[in-house]
Amino acid sequence: MKNKGFEDFLDADKPHEECGVIGYVSKNKNYDVSTPIYLGLYALQHRGQESAGIATYNEGFINVKKGKGLLTRVFNPEDFKSLKGNIGIGHVRYSTTGSGYIQNVQPIIAQYWGGMIAISHNGNIVNSKELRDKLIDKGSIIRSSSDTELILHLISNEKRHDIEKAVLNAIHKLTGAYSMVMIADEKLIGIRDPYGFRPLCLGKTDNGFVIASETTALDIINAKFVKDVDPGEMIISDGEYYKSVKFKKNERNALCVFEYIYFARADSVIDGISVYEVRKKMGMELAKMSSVNADIVIPVPDSGVTTAIGFARQAGIPFEIGLFKNSYVGRTFIHPGKDERGIKVRIKLNPIKSVLKGKNVAVVDDSIVRGTTSKRIIKLIREAGAKEVHMFISSPPIKHPCFFGIDTSEKKTLIASAHTVEQIKEYLEVDSLIYITIEGLARAVGKPLDSLCYACFNGDYAIPVDEEGSLSKTILEEYKVFER
Amino acid sequence: MKNKGFEDFLDADKPHEECGVIGYVSKNKNYDVSTPIYLGLYALQHRGQESAGIATYNEGFINVKKGKGLLTRVFNPEDFKSLKGNIGIGHVRYSTTGSGYIQNVQPIIAQYWGGMIAISHNGNIVNSKELRDKLIDKGSIIRSSSDTELILHLISNEKRHDIEKAVLNAIHKLTGAYSMVMIADEKLIGIRDPYGFRPLCLGKTDNGFVIASETTALDIINAKFVKDVDPGEMIISDGEYYKSVKFKKNERNALCVFEYIYFARADSVIDGISVYEVRKKMGMELAKMSSVNADIVIPVPDSGVTTAIGFARQAGIPFEIGLFKNSYVGRTFIHPGKDERGIKVRIKLNPIKSVLKGKNVAVVDDSIVRGTTSKRIIKLIREAGAKEVHMFISSPPIKHPCFFGIDTSEKKTLIASAHTVEQIKEYLEVDSLIYITIEGLARAVGKPLDSLCYACFNGDYAIPVDEEGSLSKTILEEYKVFER
Amino acid sequence: MKNKGFEDFLDADKPHEECGVIGYVSKNKNYDVSTPIYLGLYALQHRGQESAGIATYNEGFINVKKGKGLLTRVFNPEDFKSLKGNIGIGHVRYSTTGSGYIQNVQPIIAQYWGGMIAISHNGNIVNSKELRDKLIDKGSIIRSSSDTELILHLISNEKRHDIEKAVLNAIHKLTGAYSMVMIADEKLIGIRDPYGFRPLCLGKTDNGFVIASETTALDIINAKFVKDVDPGEMIISDGEYYKSVKFKKNERNALCVFEYIYFARADSVIDGISVYEVRKKMGMELAKMSSVNADIVIPVPDSGVTTAIGFARQAGIPFEIGLFKNSYVGRTFIHPGKDERGIKVRIKLNPIKSVLKGKNVAVVDDSIVRGTTSKRIIKLIREAGAKEVHMFISSPPIKHPCFFGIDTSEKKTLIASAHTVEQIKEYLEVDSLIYITIEGLARAVGKPLDSLCYACFNGDYAIPVDEEGSLSKTILEEYKVFER
Amino acid sequence: MKNKGFEDFLDADKPHEECGVIGYVSKNKNYDVSTPIYLGLYALQHRGQESAGIATYNEGFINVKKGKGLLTRVFNPEDFKSLKGNIGIGHVRYSTTGSGYIQNVQPIIAQYWGGMIAISHNGNIVNSKELRDKLIDKGSIIRSSSDTELILHLISNEKRHDIEKAVLNAIHKLTGAYSMVMIADEKLIGIRDPYGFRPLCLGKTDNGFVIASETTALDIINAKFVKDVDPGEMIISDGEYYKSVKFKKNERNALCVFEYIYFARADSVIDGISVYEVRKKMGMELAKMSSVNADIVIPVPDSGVTTAIGFARQAGIPFEIGLFKNSYVGRTFIHPGKDERGIKVRIKLNPIKSVLKGKNVAVVDDSIVRGTTSKRIIKLIREAGAKEVHMFISSPPIKHPCFFGIDTSEKKTLIASAHTVEQIKEYLEVDSLIYITIEGLARAVGKPLDSLCYACFNGDYAIPVDEEGSLSKTILEEYKVFER
Repeated sequence: MKNKGFEDFLDADKPHEECGVIGYVSKNKNYDVSTPIYLGLYALQHRGQESAGIATYNEGFINVKKGKGLLTRVFNPEDFKSLKGNIGIGHVRYSTTGSGYIQNVQPIIAQYWGGMIAISHNGNIVNSKELRDKLIDKGSIIRSSSDTELILHLISNEKRHDIEKAVLNAIHKLTGAYSMVMIADEKLIGIRDPYGFRPLCLGKTDNGFVIASETTALDIINAKFVKDVDPGEMIISDGEYYKSVKFKKNERNALCVFEYIYFARADSVIDGISVYEVRKKMGMELAKMSSVNADIVIPVPDSGVTTAIGFARQAGIPFEIGLFKNSYVGRTFIHPGKDERGIKVRIKLNPIKSVLKGKNVAVVDDSIVRGTTSKRIIKLIREAGAKEVHMFISSPPIKHPCFFGIDTSEKKTLIASAHTVEQIKEYLEVDSLIYITIEGLARAVGKPLDSLCYACFNGDYAIPVDEEGSLSKTILEEYKVFER
Repeated sequence: MKNKGFEDFLDADKPHEECGVIGYVSKNKNYDVSTPIYLGLYALQHRGQESAGIATYNEGFINVKKGKGLLTRVFNPEDFKSLKGNIGIGHVRYSTTGSGYIQNVQPIIAQYWGGMIAISHNGNIVNSKELRDKLIDKGSIIRSSSDTELILHLISNEKRHDIEKAVLNAIHKLTGAYSMVMIADEKLIGIRDPYGFRPLCLGKTDNGFVIASETTALDIINAKFVKDVDPGEMIISDGEYYKSVKFKKNERNALCVFEYIYFARADSVIDGISVYEVRKKMGMELAKMSSVNADIVIPVPDSGVTTAIGFARQAGIPFEIGLFKNSYVGRTFIHPGKDERGIKVRIKLNPIKSVLKGKNVAVVDDSIVRGTTSKRIIKLIREAGAKEVHMFISSPPIKHPCFFGIDTSEKKTLIASAHTVEQIKEYLEVDSLIYITIEGLARAVGKPLDSLCYACFNGDYAIPVDEEGSLSKTILEEYKVFER
Repeated sequence: MKNKGFEDFLDADKPHEECGVIGYVSKNKNYDVSTPIYLGLYALQHRGQESAGIATYNEGFINVKKGKGLLTRVFNPEDFKSLKGNIGIGHVRYSTTGSGYIQNVQPIIAQYWGGMIAISHNGNIVNSKELRDKLIDKGSIIRSSSDTELILHLISNEKRHDIEKAVLNAIHKLTGAYSMVMIADEKLIGIRDPYGFRPLCLGKTDNGFVIASETTALDIINAKFVKDVDPGEMIISDGEYYKSVKFKKNERNALCVFEYIYFARADSVIDGISVYEVRKKMGMELAKMSSVNADIVIPVPDSGVTTAIGFARQAGIPFEIGLFKNSYVGRTFIHPGKDERGIKVRIKLNPIKSVLKGKNVAVVDDSIVRGTTSKRIIKLIREAGAKEVHMFISSPPIKHPCFFGIDTSEKKTLIASAHTVEQIKEYLEVDSLIYITIEGLARAVGKPLDSLCYACFNGDYAIPVDEEGSLSKTILEEYKVFER
Repeated sequence: MKNKGFEDFLDADKPHEECGVIGYVSKNKNYDVSTPIYLGLYALQHRGQESAGIATYNEGFINVKKGKGLLTRVFNPEDFKSLKGNIGIGHVRYSTTGSGYIQNVQPIIAQYWGGMIAISHNGNIVNSKELRDKLIDKGSIIRSSSDTELILHLISNEKRHDIEKAVLNAIHKLTGAYSMVMIADEKLIGIRDPYGFRPLCLGKTDNGFVIASETTALDIINAKFVKDVDPGEMIISDGEYYKSVKFKKNERNALCVFEYIYFARADSVIDGISVYEVRKKMGMELAKMSSVNADIVIPVPDSGVTTAIGFARQAGIPFEIGLFKNSYVGRTFIHPGKDERGIKVRIKLNPIKSVLKGKNVAVVDDSIVRGTTSKRIIKLIREAGAKEVHMFISSPPIKHPCFFGIDTSEKKTLIASAHTVEQIKEYLEVDSLIYITIEGLARAVGKPLDSLCYACFNGDYAIPVDEEGSLSKTILEEYKVFER
């Protein structure tokens, strides 16, 4: 967080997705996939803004360009001249604290017994410390602090099998969340872990096949949606055909429900369900919980917009834009420190007085992590003349850390882990505070509770973890000053 | 346009505001105004994204930092160490074709008989060619192609008066649109032309006074709104007090109505009227004109959102987000040229199929300039499964060029200047096309027709211009390769 | 000086040339002169490293690219695509303290009664304050702190004459040093002041004519030397022919003798005399003054090399390289402050012990300004094992400031202005210290004393100046925070 | 070569050193070695200009900063804040064609069984293909195309020994040239291969020990020379003491004689012999071979200067600077292609006509690789008026490629591999051409022939190689598009 300017504080108080991936294989050897991969990453930029990279396979070699920052900063037009090749993968990354080193930027490439291999990964391997220890004990050197390099080692250790068998053997040693794409053996490979923690979908173009984190990446390049990659499924394609291998069936699915609440783009469809529709229904669920007589409903932009639309419709209360968001992203050079006048929040949000003055306002937001930003926003709304402020949150209280690819900060910083809703209400100085229930959320999604992961709300982790030991955190700390 | 990446094409098909200005004078000599000016410019960034600058006055000298690009690119934290001083002005600029030279970036600074002077200007001087010729004839050298330098020459020619008199004498020689701020004689000066083409407002902080293009720039620094600077008014302030000089009364006001339709931020209040409320009312006016039985109303984001809310409420039709906008601004490196698959529009907008499929859709947008983008958007909506598409435009057909600070492209590129609404409807391939009427627009604004400039719709220019001669364009072309 | 890294300290203790200029006019309208001008500036880079610029004239317009830093940093290949035109001028600049603002970077361009004009200037106008005051009094605005803009104002004030007459009238108002090139009226104009303080020469290619500060700029583009531009001469050329106007004859010439000692490149020929040969003769003169029985002669690189060769030959003592100079220029990030171990000097110079050990060493350098660097170098030589160190300086003691384009620091920092040679010898801790005499220097040049300016040695200024008032310094300070 | 601007062509026609290394360990845990390492690299910059890096060990972690370009471009002052630690290594690199990928930039860091390890390497491992194949066969992944990563793998495979034993076991598997420094087990380790192909020396400061490629890196930080690291010697130090391990004695030494001829800085002392003195003696040897009656001796700067001094003294002919070298390094944007006017060579070198005109000139240069540049230089000298041109080369004809760390281009581009001296003389159009003999060169060095490697002259490789198979080249090509 120390690397960030202050303008990011709004985002800083949200849970963070860690990655977006995409792979493309064309049956036409002369068709360069780097440009469609770039476009796909552009549509996945919301899943990671701190680094980006593209690797392409061409006649035995793999070309890579990667770097820190937004996609548009990392890539120049001339890069595409050298990113030749009909198979490619891409990656956008939000790096958790301490691991923002250039060595960790993906895709990661290596030479192994099968030639060259490249990988892009979204998720978190919870047994990475054990894997790392075993590899080192066997005499391996490890050149990054990322989980992803470990996967390459595991594949490399399965030597002289065919690639499909080698990858499957390696994958079986992984515990945790992994939606990944690979280039190996002149094929594109996509894999989603048996719980399906992170989304992954398959699309088709006239040229070949695309595998991506979200359908929005298919849409931007006009690819047709074929299917979601199922939990425990591996897709292998040469561009002409694709083959599906169901490598493991688990007792339950565990797609992260936060994909629907906040991470995924509203225009994506995940595991058959429209994110936009889920969000509208969450708003409706929230409206049903409310006895408040609000004059207007306003979202905290941008994430609360769809939910507020659903809320307004259900409640029969006018939907308004009460907070205007400055759309010019980028670093502002405002010194940290005391902020008596609330300038930090004003940089991003300005209340529209004519909308708020004298009104009872229902404010819809998607989540409260630490609560500091919400408090500032409420103050802003009150200063603009709102009479009453009622806050509606479309996620249940976040009480538990995530071990499967989301950076929710440490448990102690989660306001709901140590405070009641009543206490949070008082801290925020709102007239009322309504969180959606886990059941209401499940109704909005329209699937049984055990089809998704609600662990950050209820502590019910699909894979057993030592919540206090925070195993994944340990690993990151151990190698924290690794390389830049 | 040739300097632009493709991602800008959405904006490229909109009229363009040319500038935002701000000035701040503190009564406390030790208070540096550069940081609040920076924040104010951040809130005015929508008025100009191609260059930015700040000048501050300190003990007889004026410091300046300016450059090309967004504010956050032009300024570094260390710049503020040298931008000392209790009086300052800032500027953001959209440069019209051919004048994007560094020499023209504002504020412009010079030494004159009164010491140092700095100026930031929003507008367009229609008699600049005559003024330029006269100055040169008198033996002056002119070092830029901008109107703004001419104003400094005129002031400098009024030598040995007191500054107030000198500025007024100079201003009286100007014909056209000018909302400007200046540093001169240890004071901050703000001036708005007698027609009030461009907005300008006065605010107050604990330290002193602020003059800015829009109230949103006051809000971000917690300044209290004092008054709009009236057409024909000059404000002079030393930070302790301010003085108002009404230097000219004209028969009519001519605030550009496009400020309400599109340019200004929805959270600003211009000449006493909330932009947000006007936009909502425009939507209501449009809804009243419609006999269409739409299932949903969707905006073309971001500009159409507020209008669509008003439309939906008046028509009693559900408001939905049917087009998702990618919020990552910046250059994408997509080669221009044929675009059979509509990728150019997909980069910015993705239709949400679950919303659009099988629906009769009312689409609300603020304006149509050339029509090419609208056509692509309509196609996108249809491909997502919409049954019928009805388009509602919250500005009347744009038929005439602007000579007062807006870049609407040349007359021949304005689709409405040579085509009927029916023809445009056919070109766009919509089921119906409704433009707001000038009268409806005036009702939404809530002021008589002759209080604003509707010239781009009706050709009724407040100041006579030779529409075909396009006098301002000539000047720009004449010096087009001036300096970088 | 505060802007400089430490690696520049060697240069920091030398007098500084302020500019190099070049102009090129081709008779062939389709021949772009920007590339040869760029090459010429490359050969003049030693005359100024802080900014560079090129302006070209093409069909009524003047294109400019300029910026801070070395030529290779300022220019990109694509710049030359827009620097079209068959007439051009270039400039490299060493900016004196306080005037390193981008507004002052040359060439300077303006519109005047004759169209567009561009100018590059090397020198210093000693009556610039009076000229500036008069211009401002007449109502002009002045947009930089440089002398050069004033010259454009003077020309502009001579309106409606033909350009030749206008320029001459303007030039007659200037007092001081000026070697300049201009683009005006579709011609290239070169002017050298009546004293000829700074060099200027004319060359010829198959395409047209070149005017440049030194012959080395002609050599690099294979131009044939035609003649030195004489003091008081103006050259005007359209590329086909050139015309010479002798606009003023002065009683004496005053070419800066430091051009021969240090500024000019050894491969240049100035006013008919080879710089290399003068330097060798200076070494011979020094050797004749010495009764020292040195074992070897070593130069302080690079400037002392030629002189040391001459010294060695005259004295019959072996010439050696005793100090190795690191050729990688650029900023090193060594913190200023105490430097007990002499690292600052070691970064640039390393003594070769096998050469120096046990030897009586004659060290040849071109000048001593403050003496601090010389002292460190002597220490280095002693630490490498030299038995005796005898220092020979090829310029007489510098006792007076320069008002004609050289930055010698203030008088009080000149060690020789307040100390005897004996005192300086003791300060430097050398066994002997020999300065060349003014007469010896004149013999080496081979011209009478009154053909050159020796004012920094003997205070005999060709143009009367108030040495204590340091008029030029005043001007620079007055506008010191002008613009960046 | 395609990455290079044209200004580099002079260097392009020289053999290329591939690396410089330095390591520093302080006994004082609070002393950060990054700044002295930076200075040391500054003094080694001539050994590699394409990338640079520094790694430091601090409390169990290793920090790294590395990048492409000159040292001063790679490092910023703030980098040193994070480069904490009392043990550090640095590297400068000239990358051979095809391997300029960021992944290969050194130092290389990894985690292994002993914690963190870092390595900087100068040389070339001739059995790297076999080593790579074996490692991959064992299941390793290899993430770069550099030899250096392989060394880390070998050490990692020697698991659970103490570090000293592990490193020695690993080293015994290497065949080829390697002078390297490492951080491992809280110690600094320096190793020089049994033939001593590349130089390596040990120095001492008040704080600890320094190991570097050349003594000039010791001098700049005021370290005292302790000893050359012997061929087959490993040095291990904790900052307090150092330990020497002679791990292998070979029948012969093979220090690259080109270190004396061209690569090393003249102020360095290698294996007890001053580079400067060797070069002077080479000049004397050449002079003894000549019966030419030259009027003057001139060097091709900068490399020929010392040799020319020796020549001039032996021959009793005056030493002169006949070619002036532009000292402003950096890219010039001159389009490649035909160069009828010899501008490419003029950019760097300008003949001094007053020196050359009418003279019989002895030109001294260090080597001829392809001959194209020499030909251009001769032409330049003749055009300046030289009567006769006699060329003296201080290396014997280069006929064989190097496999031990030098990039001499392919055999077929070596003019002397397919042409007699007489033919080369005719190609260069010189009046005579004298190469030093291998015996003369050995006399200048003052050591028996079998103490150094003269293989590029006589094909007598200390380690058997397949000259036509050019094994090292194969490897580079195989992974040539590895990563950027």
